[in-house]
Amino acid sequence: MLRVAIVGASGYIGGELLRLLHGHPRVTVVAATSDRLAGRRVDGPHPNLRGLTDLCFIGHDALEGVDADVLFLAAPHRETMERMAGFLELAGTVIDLSGDFRLRDPEIYASYYGVPHRAPQLIPEFTTGLPEWHRDRLVTSDRIAVPGCMATAGILAVRPMADAGLIEGTVHVDARTGSSGSGVSGGPAAAHAERSGALRVFAPSRHRHEAEIAQATRHTVRMSATGVEAVRGVQVLCRATLAPGVGERDVRSAFRKAYADEPFVRVIAQRQGLYRLPEPKILTGSNFCDVGFAVSADDGTVLLIGALDNLVKGGAGGAVQCLNVRFGWPERTGLEFPGLHPN
Amino acid sequence: MLRVAIVGASGYIGGELLRLLHGHPRVTVVAATSDRLAGRRVDGPHPNLRGLTDLCFIGHDALEGVDADVLFLAAPHRETMERMAGFLELAGTVIDLSGDFRLRDPEIYASYYGVPHRAPQLIPEFTTGLPEWHRDRLVTSDRIAVPGCMATAGILAVRPMADAGLIEGTVHVDARTGSSGSGVSGGPAAAHAERSGALRVFAPSRHRHEAEIAQATRHTVRMSATGVEAVRGVQVLCRATLAPGVGERDVRSAFRKAYADEPFVRVIAQRQGLYRLPEPKILTGSNFCDVGFAVSADDGTVLLIGALDNLVKGGAGGAVQCLNVRFGWPERTGLEFPGLHPN
Amino acid sequence: MLRVAIVGASGYIGGELLRLLHGHPRVTVVAATSDRLAGRRVDGPHPNLRGLTDLCFIGHDALEGVDADVLFLAAPHRETMERMAGFLELAGTVIDLSGDFRLRDPEIYASYYGVPHRAPQLIPEFTTGLPEWHRDRLVTSDRIAVPGCMATAGILAVRPMADAGLIEGTVHVDARTGSSGSGVSGGPAAAHAERSGALRVFAPSRHRHEAEIAQATRHTVRMSATGVEAVRGVQVLCRATLAPGVGERDVRSAFRKAYADEPFVRVIAQRQGLYRLPEPKILTGSNFCDVGFAVSADDGTVLLIGALDNLVKGGAGGAVQCLNVRFGWPERTGLEFPGLHPN
Amino acid sequence: MLRVAIVGASGYIGGELLRLLHGHPRVTVVAATSDRLAGRRVDGPHPNLRGLTDLCFIGHDALEGVDADVLFLAAPHRETMERMAGFLELAGTVIDLSGDFRLRDPEIYASYYGVPHRAPQLIPEFTTGLPEWHRDRLVTSDRIAVPGCMATAGILAVRPMADAGLIEGTVHVDARTGSSGSGVSGGPAAAHAERSGALRVFAPSRHRHEAEIAQATRHTVRMSATGVEAVRGVQVLCRATLAPGVGERDVRSAFRKAYADEPFVRVIAQRQGLYRLPEPKILTGSNFCDVGFAVSADDGTVLLIGALDNLVKGGAGGAVQCLNVRFGWPERTGLEFPGLHPN
Repeated sequence: MLRVAIVGASGYIGGELLRLLHGHPRVTVVAATSDRLAGRRVDGPHPNLRGLTDLCFIGHDALEGVDADVLFLAAPHRETMERMAGFLELAGTVIDLSGDFRLRDPEIYASYYGVPHRAPQLIPEFTTGLPEWHRDRLVTSDRIAVPGCMATAGILAVRPMADAGLIEGTVHVDARTGSSGSGVSGGPAAAHAERSGALRVFAPSRHRHEAEIAQATRHTVRMSATGVEAVRGVQVLCRATLAPGVGERDVRSAFRKAYADEPFVRVIAQRQGLYRLPEPKILTGSNFCDVGFAVSADDGTVLLIGALDNLVKGGAGGAVQCLNVRFGWPERTGLEFPGLHPN
Repeated sequence: MLRVAIVGASGYIGGELLRLLHGHPRVTVVAATSDRLAGRRVDGPHPNLRGLTDLCFIGHDALEGVDADVLFLAAPHRETMERMAGFLELAGTVIDLSGDFRLRDPEIYASYYGVPHRAPQLIPEFTTGLPEWHRDRLVTSDRIAVPGCMATAGILAVRPMADAGLIEGTVHVDARTGSSGSGVSGGPAAAHAERSGALRVFAPSRHRHEAEIAQATRHTVRMSATGVEAVRGVQVLCRATLAPGVGERDVRSAFRKAYADEPFVRVIAQRQGLYRLPEPKILTGSNFCDVGFAVSADDGTVLLIGALDNLVKGGAGGAVQCLNVRFGWPERTGLEFPGLHPN
Repeated sequence: MLRVAIVGASGYIGGELLRLLHGHPRVTVVAATSDRLAGRRVDGPHPNLRGLTDLCFIGHDALEGVDADVLFLAAPHRETMERMAGFLELAGTVIDLSGDFRLRDPEIYASYYGVPHRAPQLIPEFTTGLPEWHRDRLVTSDRIAVPGCMATAGILAVRPMADAGLIEGTVHVDARTGSSGSGVSGGPAAAHAERSGALRVFAPSRHRHEAEIAQATRHTVRMSATGVEAVRGVQVLCRATLAPGVGERDVRSAFRKAYADEPFVRVIAQRQGLYRLPEPKILTGSNFCDVGFAVSADDGTVLLIGALDNLVKGGAGGAVQCLNVRFGWPERTGLEFPGLHPN
Repeated sequence: MLRVAIVGASGYIGGELLRLLHGHPRVTVVAATSDRLAGRRVDGPHPNLRGLTDLCFIGHDALEGVDADVLFLAAPHRETMERMAGFLELAGTVIDLSGDFRLRDPEIYASYYGVPHRAPQLIPEFTTGLPEWHRDRLVTSDRIAVPGCMATAGILAVRPMADAGLIEGTVHVDARTGSSGSGVSGGPAAAHAERSGALRVFAPSRHRHEAEIAQATRHTVRMSATGVEAVRGVQVLCRATLAPGVGERDVRSAFRKAYADEPFVRVIAQRQGLYRLPEPKILTGSNFCDVGFAVSADDGTVLLIGALDNLVKGGAGGAVQCLNVRFGWPERTGLEFPGLHPN
């Protein structure tokens, strides 16, 4: 059994890591850190784990005494880059879920995060934790940076078209997200009476995940992000201009080619039916990212759509998928839950 | 125009008072206090008021300089009883929305609120702010204590039966409430990701409003309170044993008699239809309390149901209704909004 | 009192007309038609009206015997154009809420509605029922076509910029709508278990309201429409390219100029706060359309946002506002409800 | 591999059976019937199964040609009892999810279902499909009747107290349920705009599951059932009078004793915390039934609470658990999903 430790395990991503790794037959969680809850049971903040584990949190300082093969980092950005050098000494493999090592260019990082990068020399060591596009490198990578939730949906929706040269110009992304993306300490903005039923355009532009989609697709991306009524779930609507002569058949073919053998990407673009395009509500708890498209023949644009559970494929599940790739296990291991309908 | 001041105007009840009094043709709001937001516009925390008013909050200390005929108190309990003597000097009429002057017996207060009452000598001066049962006294009363939201629904549902001697023994109340009842500072328990979709039995017994229903109906009351998925809205299901020989006709008659001329109580007990029994979702924003019943002939019990908007009929609207009664205005003044369907 | 009849009064728009007109001091509703519910009380399908009215539906055939000054049409499209000639003989003023007389060009109508227009000769007689842009003509118009819900939000959000020449090129609109927009007979697609929590891209392109926004703004419009978790409410996010040299100050100025004296349009574009941009949740039941903007200085685009209640400002309320304009009454008459917070 | 067929597989319970059995290592689904959808893929009405199976529905008539070891029946009541004799000839083991064989007494059946039982001679052949109380008989039973969703929650919450003689008299049950309990063809009552945010007391008394709880606990049960805002989830609040001298310690002990070794029942009765009592929102998709209690020492009553996912532990999951028991497999097989938090 591989020995795994989770840093920042009291948050929502940490909780999902605990849930998924508990059901993973090849690993055992040897430590879960939280300064705030050190000594308390992990099933306190994560009540879905009651009856499954007796694990308790340890403080961050106690991490040094832990013998772990893999470290999952679910700590805040900024803090992560400042402590990364130390983390890398603690375990052979580090899988980071913060935003700090996703962007390859420290200046773009500074522009989107508002602070200079504190460990730019470490950035090149990290591989993007998106098996669909980086599987070959992930097999041997011991520093993995899992993309953001909206970035994952956006990249998986847009990149087949971008890589095949089927679209041109700026991609306009309308991203929607549930409340769990704000984490456990959302403050007054997260209060139910305010957040319930919201259509809150919390980032009309310059959301950080925009930079990740641009980096991966090599297109200019303009993204707005809206908080919608949901706890989990991300959906992105990406409108792009088709290259001359490109039609629906080309689009479908590009998607099929890109994802034919992918275990966690389904191409959903049907002519009719309630769920003819990707929708996150049936993906809750699942590691699927559904992607789809709708071509507007009359004006030569295409709407590319991606949907996922931000805490699973857009977070903890994506990280576990990387773990499976890294250690040569079947990629679906521990990630078999298909999602629910109705839900 | 009557001059009105609101103490504790940054909360949800305070916001509803501002909304209702803004649309009231006989009053003008001369002051709204909030220590935290002193100097800021009231349409900051109450964005539905944008474009309607330029009023700004004042600090509590500035209240002394305000010339008001009526004081609405939307301050926390404990603080209210400690400061009540001072409030009574500031205006001729005081309408209190806290829990401090609702219970007539200071010992019951101490038992339910966990602290001794600090101003027991003032309790007898207060009239219960429920026009349906205390209209005669309210006409001349200058100290009014508006009942709690669940208490209002429970009293209006149960009292016609209790007063007519149609029920016997303990009344079991199952109360459900939306998230706005917790106020603006709900803390982690109020976070959307936790509160969304909840069926949280936050008070399996001994909820404070239980004591108010018992006081008004003179029956033993056992109440549980559950937070449900809603921002506004209270519904109570009250099961009682019918007195010997009592049938559906008697029940209906008692309700009709009690509420035939009431402007804000509708008796809803139909044989069929989606809304055949009271439901808060169509009462949002309205001052109606819908009450209804379902008799179980085979076992001699009756289910008495009440529904209302906790911030309106169960709070600010009830208080404005008392104001109308006290000053001899048509009781519906400023309270005409009927509620929405669908909603 | 003006005598008003409502055709198609059992639907959601019909119910809102009944609610608003009941509270309107200058009109009396003399008839409400529904073939399906003829002879039944209007407060059956519209339970929020219980206690306010004893009106019953009449069949469509009985309409001929009704003496009405104004006819509100809330009937389906197609049926409306086929019967319009007859409707125009029944009352001096006709206010139509269907889609049939909104588009000036019958060919565009045919393209978006999939059927040829059956009464193209009547189209020029109709004035667009949007007082913000057509008030002068509405004062004397007796044939009024109220725009679609998403169209109203889109036009009010985009037109100040378009008219002032501040934007260029295609406008990309991402529209979101609640479930009440589908009407009372939504079928399986409307079932709660399927529709709840949905992010259903039901029209990735070619939504009919797209054509209305294009007609009003004279820009090419590309719109997608998504059903979101809400009963009421529409929000549109419209991204456009700023003309050279245009900055935030110009944008704000254009909005201020367009709407400074408008009773039902508020410009919401603040630097911070939970409700710094337009959001429909605080507009439920209100006739406000909130519009706002966010300029992306770095890439010269602007996000124009509109929000409203689809059954009020985007339907029945807009129609009543037109009535007020037509008959020279204060425009807010019967439309004073400001909306709720929290909600 | 055991060969399994599902009758009535296009409904929500049928979909959950498909989901759970797809992930079950010991069985293969050889047929899924639906007259309406015969020949169509099962992942049409069950979109969460896309990518997992290519199975298509067959018509009911084609069932005779199917070679199955086990038949799951997810057909409507009435129809089920009329066809049961035929079903029993098709497979060695029949697991029925309808209401027709749950009640032992045909007269009670007739009283609650409004029709006489058509196959009373078959009732004694069925074992109640609740392993927690009937495991010994289920090991050898080939006719299994899975209890209703609210009945399962109610029985698991009340029976430990009833069997130990710790409560007396009538048990008052307040049951709450999500919209999926009404099935796929809910009609107008199920429309999102009507059902959203509902607190619909659809059965103030005489709900059919009441009879099941009474049968299992041998207490008189008075139950009301309310539809709440949720797709999945059932919660029951059961208030009972404690027998003389019974205190919290006895209650806790009875629960611990009853469920210490149960794989799918967790006793949740904590002093504090957001999830200190059972709540269905963290059980979505899981086969857990959480049960808990709150003793009111001052008046000698106890609130017994049960929560579950109506389509899993209250339906398809309970049925699969019975399958595991019947065939001697580890009881958790195929039912490992623990539920999600936040959700």
